[in-house]
Amino acid sequence: MADPISRRDLDFQLYEWLDVEQLTKFERYADHSKDTFDAVLDLAQDIAIKKYAPFNKLLDQNEPYVGEDGKVVLPDVTAEGVREFLAAGLIAGPFGEELDGGSLPATVHQAAMTWFQAANPAMSSYTFLTVGNANLLATYGTPDQIDTWVKPMLEGRYFGTMCLSEPGAGSSLSDITTKATPVGDGTYRVTGTKMWISAGDHELGENIVHLVLAKAPGGGPGVKGISLFIVPKFLEDGTRNDVALVGLNHKMGQRGTTNTLLNFGDGTFPVGDDQGAVGYLVGEEHKGLFYMFHMMNEARIGVGFLATAIGYAGYLQSVEYAKTRLQGRPVDAKDPASKPVAIIDHPDVKRMLLAQKSYVEGGLALGLWSSTLVDRAATATDEDERARAALLLDVITPISKSWPSQWCLTANDLAIQVHGGYGYTKEFDVEQCYRDNRLNPIHEGTHGVQAIDLLGRKFVMKGGAGLQVLIETLTETIDRATAAGGTAAEYAATLRPYVERIPATVMTVWADGDPAVALANATAFLEAAGHTVLAWLWLEQFLAAAGKDGDFYDGKRAATQYFFTYELPKTGPMFDLVAAKDRTTIDTPSDWF
Amino acid sequence: MADPISRRDLDFQLYEWLDVEQLTKFERYADHSKDTFDAVLDLAQDIAIKKYAPFNKLLDQNEPYVGEDGKVVLPDVTAEGVREFLAAGLIAGPFGEELDGGSLPATVHQAAMTWFQAANPAMSSYTFLTVGNANLLATYGTPDQIDTWVKPMLEGRYFGTMCLSEPGAGSSLSDITTKATPVGDGTYRVTGTKMWISAGDHELGENIVHLVLAKAPGGGPGVKGISLFIVPKFLEDGTRNDVALVGLNHKMGQRGTTNTLLNFGDGTFPVGDDQGAVGYLVGEEHKGLFYMFHMMNEARIGVGFLATAIGYAGYLQSVEYAKTRLQGRPVDAKDPASKPVAIIDHPDVKRMLLAQKSYVEGGLALGLWSSTLVDRAATATDEDERARAALLLDVITPISKSWPSQWCLTANDLAIQVHGGYGYTKEFDVEQCYRDNRLNPIHEGTHGVQAIDLLGRKFVMKGGAGLQVLIETLTETIDRATAAGGTAAEYAATLRPYVERIPATVMTVWADGDPAVALANATAFLEAAGHTVLAWLWLEQFLAAAGKDGDFYDGKRAATQYFFTYELPKTGPMFDLVAAKDRTTIDTPSDWF
Repeated sequence: MADPISRRDLDFQLYEWLDVEQLTKFERYADHSKDTFDAVLDLAQDIAIKKYAPFNKLLDQNEPYVGEDGKVVLPDVTAEGVREFLAAGLIAGPFGEELDGGSLPATVHQAAMTWFQAANPAMSSYTFLTVGNANLLATYGTPDQIDTWVKPMLEGRYFGTMCLSEPGAGSSLSDITTKATPVGDGTYRVTGTKMWISAGDHELGENIVHLVLAKAPGGGPGVKGISLFIVPKFLEDGTRNDVALVGLNHKMGQRGTTNTLLNFGDGTFPVGDDQGAVGYLVGEEHKGLFYMFHMMNEARIGVGFLATAIGYAGYLQSVEYAKTRLQGRPVDAKDPASKPVAIIDHPDVKRMLLAQKSYVEGGLALGLWSSTLVDRAATATDEDERARAALLLDVITPISKSWPSQWCLTANDLAIQVHGGYGYTKEFDVEQCYRDNRLNPIHEGTHGVQAIDLLGRKFVMKGGAGLQVLIETLTETIDRATAAGGTAAEYAATLRPYVERIPATVMTVWADGDPAVALANATAFLEAAGHTVLAWLWLEQFLAAAGKDGDFYDGKRAATQYFFTYELPKTGPMFDLVAAKDRTTIDTPSDWF
Repeated sequence: MADPISRRDLDFQLYEWLDVEQLTKFERYADHSKDTFDAVLDLAQDIAIKKYAPFNKLLDQNEPYVGEDGKVVLPDVTAEGVREFLAAGLIAGPFGEELDGGSLPATVHQAAMTWFQAANPAMSSYTFLTVGNANLLATYGTPDQIDTWVKPMLEGRYFGTMCLSEPGAGSSLSDITTKATPVGDGTYRVTGTKMWISAGDHELGENIVHLVLAKAPGGGPGVKGISLFIVPKFLEDGTRNDVALVGLNHKMGQRGTTNTLLNFGDGTFPVGDDQGAVGYLVGEEHKGLFYMFHMMNEARIGVGFLATAIGYAGYLQSVEYAKTRLQGRPVDAKDPASKPVAIIDHPDVKRMLLAQKSYVEGGLALGLWSSTLVDRAATATDEDERARAALLLDVITPISKSWPSQWCLTANDLAIQVHGGYGYTKEFDVEQCYRDNRLNPIHEGTHGVQAIDLLGRKFVMKGGAGLQVLIETLTETIDRATAAGGTAAEYAATLRPYVERIPATVMTVWADGDPAVALANATAFLEAAGHTVLAWLWLEQFLAAAGKDGDFYDGKRAATQYFFTYELPKTGPMFDLVAAKDRTTIDTPSDWF
């Protein structure tokens, strides 16, 4: 069976391209070295291949259910895999010394985590969601809250969730109706229903720490009225809190992860005389969405990694299949009785593999580069460098989330196609990849929400400062490639006008200041800008491979050529459409459908 | 629940655009009128909505299995739905008087069938495959074979299959290994294994008539050695023939249709002393692939219809959802406390609905127009008209098959996205549409096979005569639209250069006569040509709607505008790529992956 991720590619991207060893110059990572990074990557690879990958299909075919005792039943292998992950200390990797963490750069941690996301995405999510929860609480929680809730999570005893959506409020968080009422002792009582809560109930640990968005009295309308609460399944003294599992959602993919509808404070598990689940305020009242969104960049980049990882697994499987499956002959074969060739020798199959390669290795590059921004924003010694990295992180996040969600799903579609009829069956894994990956353009902000975030907020905030930093970053590489001459300079010359179209298009659409018109084709803009950034990431990889011989580097060069030849030109009509401020959608009333 | 197909659109396309009443001028259809056509459409709509649609999810969730007695077990509702379809005489609709058929034009028959394909694609396939089988045998079988096998199929007593693929030979039929040995009494004994046989075993009728490709002695290598045989599950006298069910394939979608691995002549059900399943030759030896491919146009157009129908069902569901689901506010809303709007009021949702509309109504137009060619090729009084229609049918078939398979799957992807998280769950139907539709780019010739067929065969055969007829057809509309002036003339001016690129690109790629280079980017060419043809079909619909008022016609105009603005320009970079004779794929050796 093919590996779910290419270690060779991870090593190339981390060490030969991004030079992550340089991160050890920052104090927080000073105890690290290439050896310690490698050790983490080895460990992740080993556990993922032994305890996650073999059970990917099993989790898909044995969906969680609620047993007669009302408890969620998961396949035993999930508990085993998660236990192994926790026992290895991988969950505390990215946390600092103060939490007995591994002080691992986000870049290296994320690289290691791709093994689990690719090997068994559904199994990986229980601990991944816990890391996100712990990360938020470690930043905004009180020391007591950190002791009580974060430390047990990092010890592997507690698990965490994020409870944002409600049945009537998904993309539109301002419409949430969950209420939090202060009861006078500093705690609150939370009542309401939360939807789509991944890992919202299970028996993997001693407790589940829900982070819940709710409205406390006195907040304004809309998102300003939202506060953030810790609502644990069990209180500190072991009392069952009033958080009730109402139902499990049955999904097309990611079936091994419970996805729940939870009632808070419906009286199923009453605590004392007050109604509601006991909740503890995080930070200040009415700032809940700020805290949540401050962590959102990393959560969204995490979705991008998840999409990339699933795309990667499908890609490597289709390469293996294409090299071994014999079928057909070259179109110019003269002898119909000649032996069939491996299907990888058909140009159209090669096209589908090059496309996948450019998407999944490009997606990985996008995720890892974005993660270096997380690291630099958090730990760079120089304040300007921190600010610049934070700005870049802000503007790139909609792309880091949406691009892999779109194109690595496309990769899975191509992986099925390479397999032919076999790819459509449960005998192979690629159909599951395709189903699992379809979630990613939806959760953590849909594709359309990312588009509006990019064109309506990130590229115009601070007078376009973020956009400017991004363009400078891309242009620096283009200048370097131009100076290098040869093919690199040709790619640079090809890429430059596309890069220039990004700010030019932003200027054009916002010229009248009418957001309805400016954002009418935000999605096309997101996709055009995303593909342009990816061409830049391929040029970066091309430069990192310069002067190096061998199949691996030739493969990087071929994928760069593919991306520049087949993919980048697709953005031309998209930029045209956006720049034309086309009104087709806004001028079509709903009665015409 | 939304209808699976829009009757209003069917009526528009059949009567206001294609003017199918004109077909009654041909002798074969002379007894028909708009009334009889409507009666068939009404009947199909009624049965599909009552007996097919309600059980679409049930079939998905209750996959066929093999019972302890070795027989295939289907949900009861499948037998009920199929029985109702047969009792209504719909299966004999397209057959002539000589077979007690309905002498229905293919165009009207196919339009009626979309109800079943959209309502419950898996349930529809049992009878649809039977029609295909009966159609072939009615054309190439002897009178005795027609009496023995075709008539019981049209009476609803027997079912039919097509057995082409084998585990090692899917796209490459020349490599099939199933053998047929004459035993001296005019019959043959067939031995071998066939894979992916839809409806290959079940208990819906008295018998299953397999049409099997096999190699008889004396044929050359490759496809020339292939002959076609009738191999029934039960012989005329009721003897069980040696056709054994080896296993059922478990698929991502279309789960209600059994998909089987069949052994012919493995001795499970021996017949007499000779080894092998008893088979009866169809037509002449070694001409099997000719017979099969002669029917392939209709089979492939049928796949296009299937893809369109599933896309259509998802589209109508997402329209209904978007009109009722409240979420968010316009981007220029000032008051965060204002009421949420229906999501259809968000431009990006409207984009996703317009895209779907343009794909599924466009796919329907493509299928119905292709079907008029089937009708004209078979029944036009004028020999030249017949020949011209046959030529056009030949060249359009790769597009009629592949375009809906690609874009109506994309429609289903967008239908999920419109539903947000709900669309990813089994609570709604769109995730099933997406899974069901993923089959269509694979079976009856993969996407890549269609591409090579179009650019390597159909557009170059007979000195490019077929291509010329296609371009003349498109140009005639463009000239008519130009003459009409106004918006139609603008669309015409936009479309003309794209249409001109089709023959220009064919000339360019074949200039050197090297098929490896010419066909290296055949897929991009197929997609570019397909989108161009679809723009033409939208211009046709635009013209048919000219001067007519109301939401329905405004919707047609909006979808035309969408297609010309958002979709047609995508073909520019594709034509560029093909015309550049880019060698990226052929120059990338397999070791680089």
